[in-house]
Amino acid sequence: MDKQINSTQNTLVKQIVLLKDKSRERKKTGLFVIEGAREMELATKGNYKIKTIMFYAELFNIENLKTLNIGNAEVIEISKEVYQKIAYRETTEGIIAIAESKTNTIEALSFKNNNPLILIAEAPEKPGNIGAILRTADAANVDAVIIANPKTDLYNPNIIRSSVGCLFTNQIATGSTQDIIAFLKAKNINIYSAILQESQDYHKQDYTQPTAIVVGTEATGLSQAWRQAAKQNISIPMQGAIDSMNVSVAAGILIFEAKRQRDFK
Amino acid sequence: MDKQINSTQNTLVKQIVLLKDKSRERKKTGLFVIEGAREMELATKGNYKIKTIMFYAELFNIENLKTLNIGNAEVIEISKEVYQKIAYRETTEGIIAIAESKTNTIEALSFKNNNPLILIAEAPEKPGNIGAILRTADAANVDAVIIANPKTDLYNPNIIRSSVGCLFTNQIATGSTQDIIAFLKAKNINIYSAILQESQDYHKQDYTQPTAIVVGTEATGLSQAWRQAAKQNISIPMQGAIDSMNVSVAAGILIFEAKRQRDFK
Repeated sequence: MDKQINSTQNTLVKQIVLLKDKSRERKKTGLFVIEGAREMELATKGNYKIKTIMFYAELFNIENLKTLNIGNAEVIEISKEVYQKIAYRETTEGIIAIAESKTNTIEALSFKNNNPLILIAEAPEKPGNIGAILRTADAANVDAVIIANPKTDLYNPNIIRSSVGCLFTNQIATGSTQDIIAFLKAKNINIYSAILQESQDYHKQDYTQPTAIVVGTEATGLSQAWRQAAKQNISIPMQGAIDSMNVSVAAGILIFEAKRQRDFK
Repeated sequence: MDKQINSTQNTLVKQIVLLKDKSRERKKTGLFVIEGAREMELATKGNYKIKTIMFYAELFNIENLKTLNIGNAEVIEISKEVYQKIAYRETTEGIIAIAESKTNTIEALSFKNNNPLILIAEAPEKPGNIGAILRTADAANVDAVIIANPKTDLYNPNIIRSSVGCLFTNQIATGSTQDIIAFLKAKNINIYSAILQESQDYHKQDYTQPTAIVVGTEATGLSQAWRQAAKQNISIPMQGAIDSMNVSVAAGILIFEAKRQRDFK
């Protein structure tokens, strides 16, 4: 332990509150907040650099830090009052950290082999849906998740929380739809755009070649650019009264059909 | 229009607030609240009996009621103040109704043919997950959704909202795990329980015969009874850092694999 903070008026405490609340502050500083031991473990495994760790000794045993690759992060013990001020719920695990965000550029993406499976979501709005998509992508061990025309920054605390740390376990990039399509075309990756109009049944397509599956928002679907860039527009047959499905469920169905065709290899 | 209500102190207004907030009140009266024109349309199509309709004329055109099968429901115009008091968001569609709930007993379930596909969720907790599951079940046109050992009543406003009205389009039952297993066994419906332990890959099973797919909670999974009752315990291969997936995404992947095997018939 390097020091103690007992005052909720401390500068670092105020910075954590700002980093949690303000996307602008996260972008300006290149920093974000991680809450929870499990999330911290996944972030260190994902090579995120931890800058500062704060723990509340009643809830978190500092000995547990030894199992984490925290480098030379500053470790600070905080009082109950400080913890209550900065924690999402005071019953969580007693540990909060400041970490450095990654740039997540498309150019930085690298693939383990020459037959990648990529999941792309255009302009997703709800952090809960983004989190669920990241959990699905982790389970499927896709080669990358790309967020096109993002509406929020990835380091929104609600995304981290709803992804249960899968924000850190996936290779993620963000970029404009135009740039992403150019990237996929250059790499000869087949684009399958989930669109109701002029589309084929998703389960009759072949996803065993390099594949990007692209989903849009529930409200407006995918932009025209994705429809035109697609090798094939695909849809899930809707046989009920409603013509839409939760976007993270649809993404799961499509990605796992691709996984099935690839025999989960 | 039968009458007008301008006071937030009106008895009916107070009852709507109670019905939205209190499961106990819904159970006691056998009534619940529907908000939104689309949800109301789906409820009338699903043969729910509407008792009272309240509309705020600035937002809802009463002429639109003619397309709904509202029977002899009482129609009441309400003031802005009343609407603001009872509406989830004042920007929604200006229409709120009181309807009669169904009993949703297992015994009342009836199947269109002798090869049903059923989705069962045991003790789901989050209304958002239940809503997403109901949307998936609607899209897949499953023969029934069964909630085992329910934690909340189905007519929770958050379930109706997150299901975008699919609470009304599915054939739904609730019951104890024990009673549901007895029902399925009596009907010779194969049980596939989604459990990580001692399970087979989900995509290697045959769901073309009478099938019930059963999912548990993310926190505790399925109870022992479902594991023992299963023809086969199944799991989705988890190839990432995390060993769980959002329950509504998992249900979607499993149900749509069954649909694919049945060629969406």
